Amino acid sequence: MTDIVHLSLDEAHALALSALIARGLSADQAGAVADTVTAAERDCCPSHGLFRIPFYVNALKNPDVNRRAVPQISDLAPGVLHVDAQFGFAPLALKRSADPLADKARANGIAALAINNVYHIAALWPELERLADKGLVAFAFTGSISYVAPAGGTKALYGTNPMGFAWPRIGRPPMVFDQASSVTARGEIQLHLRDGKSIPEGWAIGPDGQPTTDPQTGLAGAQLPFGGHKGAAIALMVELLAGALIGDMFGYEAKARDHGTGAPLGGEFLIAIDPARCVRGGNAQASLEHAEALFAKILEQDGTRLPSDRRFAARQRTPIEGIHIPKSLHDTITQMSA
Amino acid sequence: MTDIVHLSLDEAHALALSALIARGLSADQAGAVADTVTAAERDCCPSHGLFRIPFYVNALKNPDVNRRAVPQISDLAPGVLHVDAQFGFAPLALKRSADPLADKARANGIAALAINNVYHIAALWPELERLADKGLVAFAFTGSISYVAPAGGTKALYGTNPMGFAWPRIGRPPMVFDQASSVTARGEIQLHLRDGKSIPEGWAIGPDGQPTTDPQTGLAGAQLPFGGHKGAAIALMVELLAGALIGDMFGYEAKARDHGTGAPLGGEFLIAIDPARCVRGGNAQASLEHAEALFAKILEQDGTRLPSDRRFAARQRTPIEGIHIPKSLHDTITQMSA
Repeated sequence: MTDIVHLSLDEAHALALSALIARGLSADQAGAVADTVTAAERDCCPSHGLFRIPFYVNALKNPDVNRRAVPQISDLAPGVLHVDAQFGFAPLALKRSADPLADKARANGIAALAINNVYHIAALWPELERLADKGLVAFAFTGSISYVAPAGGTKALYGTNPMGFAWPRIGRPPMVFDQASSVTARGEIQLHLRDGKSIPEGWAIGPDGQPTTDPQTGLAGAQLPFGGHKGAAIALMVELLAGALIGDMFGYEAKARDHGTGAPLGGEFLIAIDPARCVRGGNAQASLEHAEALFAKILEQDGTRLPSDRRFAARQRTPIEGIHIPKSLHDTITQMSA
Repeated sequence: MTDIVHLSLDEAHALALSALIARGLSADQAGAVADTVTAAERDCCPSHGLFRIPFYVNALKNPDVNRRAVPQISDLAPGVLHVDAQFGFAPLALKRSADPLADKARANGIAALAINNVYHIAALWPELERLADKGLVAFAFTGSISYVAPAGGTKALYGTNPMGFAWPRIGRPPMVFDQASSVTARGEIQLHLRDGKSIPEGWAIGPDGQPTTDPQTGLAGAQLPFGGHKGAAIALMVELLAGALIGDMFGYEAKARDHGTGAPLGGEFLIAIDPARCVRGGNAQASLEHAEALFAKILEQDGTRLPSDRRFAARQRTPIEGIHIPKSLHDTITQMSA
């Protein structure tokens, strides 16, 4: 008897898919979510892997979520693409809009994508990698529900508001980072609570505005931005880009509409840039080779690695070795499929 | 006898201008630098005010600096403008390119500006404010000379690499932040050295890779990124955007070419976005009003303020009250004008 279940990546995908289909998601919505969740398992990012399936299922308690949403894509400007995700989950909207966004970036040199009315429960790196795999430099910004205090303040206002960035590399996966504006992911604090551990000082403050090392007090209070006022400035920027700029919601507005599910309705904003259009002569290859010299300089220092390199190393192993998930999680998802 | 000199803003501008003209700068180059320096004095940002004039003059010891550079503006793509700054200082290149960049942003919804061959000794907020004053949302990224260690490393590689962002506001100055990727500005460590004070732990490491509170040891070693690996990721992003993407130099390459002057030759990358092109119906006013609701939510918490609000408050006073600078600085600049 073991507490761990071993799955191939195909089995992981099938498990995710069956739970989502059983809960009434369209094949397209469910398939896109299952792809994203499986990519996280493939990269050994369990917090965005099958662990998320119960979050998606829980989100369905919100009557506003559209299980069969078909993203509507249109033009706002020569350089700006719009997707109305129709209150569905983000992965399908992102998958469908990647090619038209890339076309715009190549035609204009730079292009933006505004996604409205989307539930975003995933990481940003899948959409960033998809664009980088097309040879583009990309940014992504999305909000969440109010969990983070503004600089100098003590009450949760901003979402954990991740910002991500990708740079294409020659003959290997891109350089990608995808980081919350908070010191730590909310899930990390939840794991400390589950495991009866205290949290490091600096992660959160309590409802009284005082520093705390108690995870429950921190969850009831506010998370802190990374790097003090500088991280708070980035959180504010993300609110503006994924909220006001594209006519969507701020974190505190999403919170008022989440029906207690914790699933943030809101927007996502992406920027894609074609390196071939950013230099005289259009030799993107030279720009990418130049970047490799910088990466080499970083890696020649002991103790360094590039963002996402751990994910890419895992990606070499899991298609062969498969993955392991807690039996309790496997049971939960299997029950959801019934 | 006093150690402080009082100047009107016009007098500050004239003082800067005369020193730069005396050192052979063209009227256009000198005027743009003097405008930028005076704007910093107006906003009570002394570290980017007249204090910088000796930096500009020192930069002229680098034989590559072109005192009479005329920025060359051209198109790389419908959405990408290029400026070859011809080895002059940044302010003139930025001033001349603002209108064509804004035109591109309005036509396409989003546009980028790649500036090559420029010496950037100023803050980023002047160019960000100029774009926001035209109703645009803007990003700016520029490199500097290797001073900052990569995540996990111990040797200076990245520049202090500021990233800035501006959001236009209705009837008042924009929300602007402009922040180095290092915990603190290099000048701050230099001021601690001058004043015989130790620096807080976390600002820098010594040449041995160990934490230090001695400013001289920290200056000889490496500054640290803000917020650990997250700030380091932003520093890396800025290297890529202001370096490889636009065919310009990384911090370590700029260092090899600065002739010991500390004046970084390199690139600057800007993105400008027209809010009217990012929402269905094109009602930018509604987007900007929505943002005001967020700003109000921030400011209703005790202890908060918006980035740049101190500068804007100072801006109300200095046109009437003038500014004060150390007599030693006034003497130095006056001598430079001889």
